[in-house]
Amino acid sequence: MTYEFEPIGVIHSCFKEKFGIPRQSGLIPEAFGRLEILPPFNRPEAFRELECFSHIWLTFVFHAAIREQWSPSVRPPRLGGNRRVGVFATRSPFRPNPLGLSVVKLNRIDFSAHQVNLELGGIDLLDQTPVLDIKPYVPYSDAIPDAREGFAPQPAKPSLSIRYSNAAKTFLDTLDADFVRHLHSLLEQILEQDPRPAYLQGSDTRQTFGMRLYDLNIRWRIEDDNLTITEIDSCIRPNNAKPHRYE
Amino acid sequence: MTYEFEPIGVIHSCFKEKFGIPRQSGLIPEAFGRLEILPPFNRPEAFRELECFSHIWLTFVFHAAIREQWSPSVRPPRLGGNRRVGVFATRSPFRPNPLGLSVVKLNRIDFSAHQVNLELGGIDLLDQTPVLDIKPYVPYSDAIPDAREGFAPQPAKPSLSIRYSNAAKTFLDTLDADFVRHLHSLLEQILEQDPRPAYLQGSDTRQTFGMRLYDLNIRWRIEDDNLTITEIDSCIRPNNAKPHRYE
Repeated sequence: MTYEFEPIGVIHSCFKEKFGIPRQSGLIPEAFGRLEILPPFNRPEAFRELECFSHIWLTFVFHAAIREQWSPSVRPPRLGGNRRVGVFATRSPFRPNPLGLSVVKLNRIDFSAHQVNLELGGIDLLDQTPVLDIKPYVPYSDAIPDAREGFAPQPAKPSLSIRYSNAAKTFLDTLDADFVRHLHSLLEQILEQDPRPAYLQGSDTRQTFGMRLYDLNIRWRIEDDNLTITEIDSCIRPNNAKPHRYE
Repeated sequence: MTYEFEPIGVIHSCFKEKFGIPRQSGLIPEAFGRLEILPPFNRPEAFRELECFSHIWLTFVFHAAIREQWSPSVRPPRLGGNRRVGVFATRSPFRPNPLGLSVVKLNRIDFSAHQVNLELGGIDLLDQTPVLDIKPYVPYSDAIPDAREGFAPQPAKPSLSIRYSNAAKTFLDTLDADFVRHLHSLLEQILEQDPRPAYLQGSDTRQTFGMRLYDLNIRWRIEDDNLTITEIDSCIRPNNAKPHRYE
């Protein structure tokens, strides 16, 4: 017996690749995204009074983690990548049914032009993620601050200081100033989480890391506690064009 | 594009029919249940360290609410049953993809006899519910006590006092004493939520209501603020048999 589900929407996210995506939602408030509701689900009445809720649950498909086989145990990056725990004791995308669950901020619903778009904040979702369901966040049943958690420690406090190379600054000067302000905040929040694998954290590898945000390639290096954004360039976009709605 | 999922487990619940099921999980701590993991997912290593978490999320199928058509708006019982809101602003089981989401207490994992069974508390799940995924509850991302909620008010404070008719008492005397103590608590917690449709609540209808719990038929009546359990009898079970693991 199997059950078949059809996406009701698709995510448009600043995160164009897996590396750099926060390990949980809510960690990067500046990570905005948009959930585009697909026909035939784009009927405004299906969203009536949803805006009364500040947060929503998204049930989605880990579309970049679909595998033929499933493994009963995984090595969570947060545990250093060498301790195995049961897949159901983790939020790993590699699970028997590749279903994801995130609570995100609902900033606004845009009903214009026969479309329904939900503007979101604090997302941890890859671009093009198919969404199967939306539910309101109801604190009286969903918020259990005293729940005991197992091996997953609280996210570490940020300790890195971030600077930009001259080359990166020069490139940023060619972009829209509002977008650059947003990008500074977003990068700060992402890099404070130190997206490198846990086994590299705290070590001074001088290795260069890279990630894609919007249509920008971003490279950085860590020496001691100083993080330097060495390079930023555009994958596709001509300089000085503001990305459409920060997507 | 559709996605197909296979249940990893099935719920064994005291709730044998929809009427009487609490509107959210956690409202009825005495509502115990068991999640039986189905092969090939019943591998102990897939659950390693899950017991470190006090609560888990279940993503499940509303198997008794699967419809050919979906309606963009619904009338939540809690709002009196005559105000329409968007389906995505509710947790209604009647939704485009009939996916449910509940956080439940994880009391114990039983690994005996080549089976994996998760013993749960505070469930709001119908018997035989197919479960698609299990995830640990992680307070630092999932608990948002200050989230703003829309039209859904806090559950009303209980105000009913509960008594048992002589006929009901006589029947209960034939049952196992431990089970009867559990049943008293469970009934009290369910009936305090007043499972009648909201438009009947607060009115003195003298109508008799019934629900099935385990294999018991239970009937009650409300007059003023007094709730009387008028009748309890067994659907199938010979008297004096203790239900297997309270199922």
